[in-house]
Amino acid sequence: MTHDDYMKVALSVAEATVGQTSPNPSVGAVVVKNRKILGIGSHLEPGKEHAEVHALKQAGSSAEGADIYVTLEPCSHYGKTPPCADLIIEHKLRKVYVACLDPNPAVAGKGVEKLRQAGIEVEVGLQETRATELNSKFFHFIQSKRPYVTLKVAMTLDGKTATSTGDSRWITSEKARIDVHKQRHIHDAILVGVNTVLKDNPHLTTRLPQGGKNPIRVILDTHLKIQEHAFVLNDDAPTKIICGSNPDIESFKLKHPNVQVIQLTTDDITTEDVLDILGEQGIQSLYVEGGSTVHATFIERRLFNECHWYIAPKLLGGADAISAVGGKSPTFMKEAALLEFTSVEQLGQDIKLIVRPNKEGE
Amino acid sequence: MTHDDYMKVALSVAEATVGQTSPNPSVGAVVVKNRKILGIGSHLEPGKEHAEVHALKQAGSSAEGADIYVTLEPCSHYGKTPPCADLIIEHKLRKVYVACLDPNPAVAGKGVEKLRQAGIEVEVGLQETRATELNSKFFHFIQSKRPYVTLKVAMTLDGKTATSTGDSRWITSEKARIDVHKQRHIHDAILVGVNTVLKDNPHLTTRLPQGGKNPIRVILDTHLKIQEHAFVLNDDAPTKIICGSNPDIESFKLKHPNVQVIQLTTDDITTEDVLDILGEQGIQSLYVEGGSTVHATFIERRLFNECHWYIAPKLLGGADAISAVGGKSPTFMKEAALLEFTSVEQLGQDIKLIVRPNKEGE
Repeated sequence: MTHDDYMKVALSVAEATVGQTSPNPSVGAVVVKNRKILGIGSHLEPGKEHAEVHALKQAGSSAEGADIYVTLEPCSHYGKTPPCADLIIEHKLRKVYVACLDPNPAVAGKGVEKLRQAGIEVEVGLQETRATELNSKFFHFIQSKRPYVTLKVAMTLDGKTATSTGDSRWITSEKARIDVHKQRHIHDAILVGVNTVLKDNPHLTTRLPQGGKNPIRVILDTHLKIQEHAFVLNDDAPTKIICGSNPDIESFKLKHPNVQVIQLTTDDITTEDVLDILGEQGIQSLYVEGGSTVHATFIERRLFNECHWYIAPKLLGGADAISAVGGKSPTFMKEAALLEFTSVEQLGQDIKLIVRPNKEGE
Repeated sequence: MTHDDYMKVALSVAEATVGQTSPNPSVGAVVVKNRKILGIGSHLEPGKEHAEVHALKQAGSSAEGADIYVTLEPCSHYGKTPPCADLIIEHKLRKVYVACLDPNPAVAGKGVEKLRQAGIEVEVGLQETRATELNSKFFHFIQSKRPYVTLKVAMTLDGKTATSTGDSRWITSEKARIDVHKQRHIHDAILVGVNTVLKDNPHLTTRLPQGGKNPIRVILDTHLKIQEHAFVLNDDAPTKIICGSNPDIESFKLKHPNVQVIQLTTDDITTEDVLDILGEQGIQSLYVEGGSTVHATFIERRLFNECHWYIAPKLLGGADAISAVGGKSPTFMKEAALLEFTSVEQLGQDIKLIVRPNKEGE
């Protein structure tokens, strides 16, 4: 086992908890002495023990003189639990391997500093790319105070999401649809426009064979047009509706006391407003399922971090069919948002493309 | 070297000549005796020596008692060259390995029969899938008397091929565009609708750094609206225009004596008509480059064998942008043409998907 191998163990236990630690990041830790693993820990639940605590508890008194591999810089401040840096110092560890620093500018480096001042060796950067990727949503939120936005589209090969009559069942195969539910499980919130609710009446819950965490449901509904018996208004998961200044929300709130209605002072709801509001409410990751007009607003403003594109091997045809991204076309092709493919995966008969903004090309 | 290995050598020299043997198939042959290769041949040019002739010429008198590996059943009839089956018999070979039979029902099996009657052992089926794939266009043509149709689309991730103003330069990167020219080189003909000519004034020639064969240019132009100075009317490559019964083609023909105008007796040109006409003219493979209405007609009638889909990592947006496939949308999603992905390839920053009709799903 190399240093990288030990860090990979810490990463894999951290990766296993993605979706269950929010608003905290996913973190893993491994304690090693004389080439023997003495403890493995992962942060399992917000408010509960950090990864280092679990790993050090397993190691017990033999932790003295050992090394610890942590996927994220140990905390140096009192939160819901005491600082992990202190714990490492108390246990008299020899060396700390840190995959990546805490992204919060106010905190970054302080944990490492504290350890070094206590005479403990620290090395930063082992498996850094994978560790950064692991908490990309959390890091983005900490730095921008807005949720990490993933746009999701399921379309035919020719870019259609529904026929001209609105029929869209089903575009992709079951394997792709299960993957969508996995994404719902790992996102804090899911967002759709009210037209999608009116047309499809979706549940927007996580339905996996083995269960899963429901995301908060966010509906953009400027004029509060949502149908009274929409499934998203039930108690299966929390729901927030963002509406404009016009509608009378009081009678709606009486009928739906469990739904949070967020009324803006304008009818012109911008994507920036939406992300600011959700960020203030602590939503770190947002899964945008459309429809085509909602996607267009996020793309036009370049306010997304990732796109998950499910492509079914079907050709629908129809200049009158519903297109994956609506809105208004720019005049020139060179005005298109420039991205890059980061992953291509076959999911049953479909293909899933993960695409991210191309920072160089923009 | 196993039997498969020898056949793979024959296949690789055959694959190297795709695009230069039409209207003949690409064929390779390898002569082997005592585990030594005595001759390797490939059919290089229509009307010239078949693969077996080259390979046997190299082997010379030592061919007696040798085995020959041929990617396609040796011919048994007099064409522009004498039958290869006779040549094999004359050379007193021991055994013939045939990858696949001649697909022409009138000929299939006759070459093998002739060899067996002369006391030569024959084994059919070695590397059959790859050998069938190699000449899929030729086989389709022989069996259906219509060209093998490849639909080509270059689109943004959201399925657009141009902005609402028609701007489409450029969607894909240079690597993808070079691949398109390679496809033009290996197809007998290229087809577009007149609107593409009016809008983009393309050359539709093969422009590769190392040169290449120009396909015959076919323009669908019901009302003979093509602009007088369109590049496709020049002498860089042969051009055929298919038009309806109305236009006066005589004055056009006087101006453009080198362009073949095929006038139908109706103004309602069907895709079936087009393929029958091109088939009668000996065009075995057709590369359809659009636009969206032309693609729609081929898809609606399910008259295509393969789709080459180049996807650029760009999001254009716009319900008003031009969609990859136009025409009229069916009412239900289940009416979409069902395909299957057979290849996914990264070409520079773009992705190329090869997709074929899913015979089971239809």
